[in-house]
Amino acid sequence: MLQNCSITICQIPIRVRYPEVDRQNAVHHSVYPVYFEMGRTELLRANGYDYKTLEDNGIALVVARLECRFRAPARYDDELLLTTRVGKIDRVRLEHLYKLERPDNGRLIAEGRTILVHIDKEGKLQSLPEFLLAEKPE
Amino acid sequence: MLQNCSITICQIPIRVRYPEVDRQNAVHHSVYPVYFEMGRTELLRANGYDYKTLEDNGIALVVARLECRFRAPARYDDELLLTTRVGKIDRVRLEHLYKLERPDNGRLIAEGRTILVHIDKEGKLQSLPEFLLAEKPE
Amino acid sequence: MLQNCSITICQIPIRVRYPEVDRQNAVHHSVYPVYFEMGRTELLRANGYDYKTLEDNGIALVVARLECRFRAPARYDDELLLTTRVGKIDRVRLEHLYKLERPDNGRLIAEGRTILVHIDKEGKLQSLPEFLLAEKPE
Amino acid sequence: MLQNCSITICQIPIRVRYPEVDRQNAVHHSVYPVYFEMGRTELLRANGYDYKTLEDNGIALVVARLECRFRAPARYDDELLLTTRVGKIDRVRLEHLYKLERPDNGRLIAEGRTILVHIDKEGKLQSLPEFLLAEKPE
Repeated sequence: MLQNCSITICQIPIRVRYPEVDRQNAVHHSVYPVYFEMGRTELLRANGYDYKTLEDNGIALVVARLECRFRAPARYDDELLLTTRVGKIDRVRLEHLYKLERPDNGRLIAEGRTILVHIDKEGKLQSLPEFLLAEKPE
Repeated sequence: MLQNCSITICQIPIRVRYPEVDRQNAVHHSVYPVYFEMGRTELLRANGYDYKTLEDNGIALVVARLECRFRAPARYDDELLLTTRVGKIDRVRLEHLYKLERPDNGRLIAEGRTILVHIDKEGKLQSLPEFLLAEKPE
Repeated sequence: MLQNCSITICQIPIRVRYPEVDRQNAVHHSVYPVYFEMGRTELLRANGYDYKTLEDNGIALVVARLECRFRAPARYDDELLLTTRVGKIDRVRLEHLYKLERPDNGRLIAEGRTILVHIDKEGKLQSLPEFLLAEKPE
Repeated sequence: MLQNCSITICQIPIRVRYPEVDRQNAVHHSVYPVYFEMGRTELLRANGYDYKTLEDNGIALVVARLECRFRAPARYDDELLLTTRVGKIDRVRLEHLYKLERPDNGRLIAEGRTILVHIDKEGKLQSLPEFLLAEKPE
């Protein structure tokens, strides 16, 4: 039997790569969803799972909704700190909340929110696997 | 004197590129903001402006907020239709709304919304340039 | 029986997207291979094939070798012209040659070369399908 | 006076991100140049320089030539090892050589080579800064 995901928060450093920065000398807004996904992946790994194996076993989680507020530009070579937290969970929706900061000056760069859903191979919505939940659903 | 942007809706075809598709055989969710930006650019061009020249002249618009709902996967080589519309505008915020469809079967792929703001070189919030508005602000 | 690919050259326009440009205000060098792949895809399409269907039917072509010379920077919103030509072909290697230009001033931006090979699902090298050749191999 | 870059080899781990993998379940070939650039950056940092500061001070190095041989596919979530070495240097050209491996099984994924040149703000070729050289040029 699989253990539940009891760890609900995780922090990772992210170094900004050269091509992630645009001609305004700022990380392009399309890059933040990639960072957020890295945060989710590492949060899952902290709980003893790796997303690749899940997906290879037919448990595909897809992003159904994305929200992001861009607070301040991040620059090339910045070493950012991404905090990923599990938000609300119900039978079919898994929310994550993200905060991206520059730890050297405490500046908030971006905040985000995603909703993941679980789909089968035909793309049909499924209940979330129980082990993804921090606590047993009542 | 600059003309106002009286055209408030624009449609462009977008062919999905190979590296935009992930191992689930679906366009990665981080690609949609890139498509939306292409829609905004072409809407501006339809009004007689090009964003590059604006930015080169110090009028930098940045995405302050992004929202996206992913409705159905888009696949490699799909020819999608993106509809970009101007939403609400006030003195400092310019909203755009996006709808991405597969025109061959009418399937809705994604819907999005962005808020742009105008910043100066120090990153300070400015009033939006008047010509960006469809009508003279009252 | 499949027709051979008798068309061996093709030109497509490519408009530079905002996030493809870096903080030097130039298209990042990692973007050119993406453009080259678009050229190959359209060359195949001009011959009546689409690469997606080939790949879905188990004919996976992979890039075994890439070379690129960067001659002059391309800028955001430039409308470039990509010329893709079939080069040498033997039983297992399919060469393409690329030339990327700015048609408004004739400036050469980049030149490239790729070698494609045909692999099966286990990643083993296969003979190229005959229909990819411009002429029947002797 | 600036110290010369006496460290000429550097290794970094690179974890493959989700959107870097394509529908063939392999890292797209356009991603490897991004990895190579990360290797160069860290090699420079090991010598006490950061490329961002150099570029901000007007020392822009651009990739004039890129070559890559793709030996075996890398997969999502693989932790790869990139070895970056300085190759030949003359007055205007700085060569780097790259080897990307999977350290868990010793498999060679890709090999690469780039030539960097130093350009000024007008894009004119300059002599390489002396401190980039491992030894004083004779």
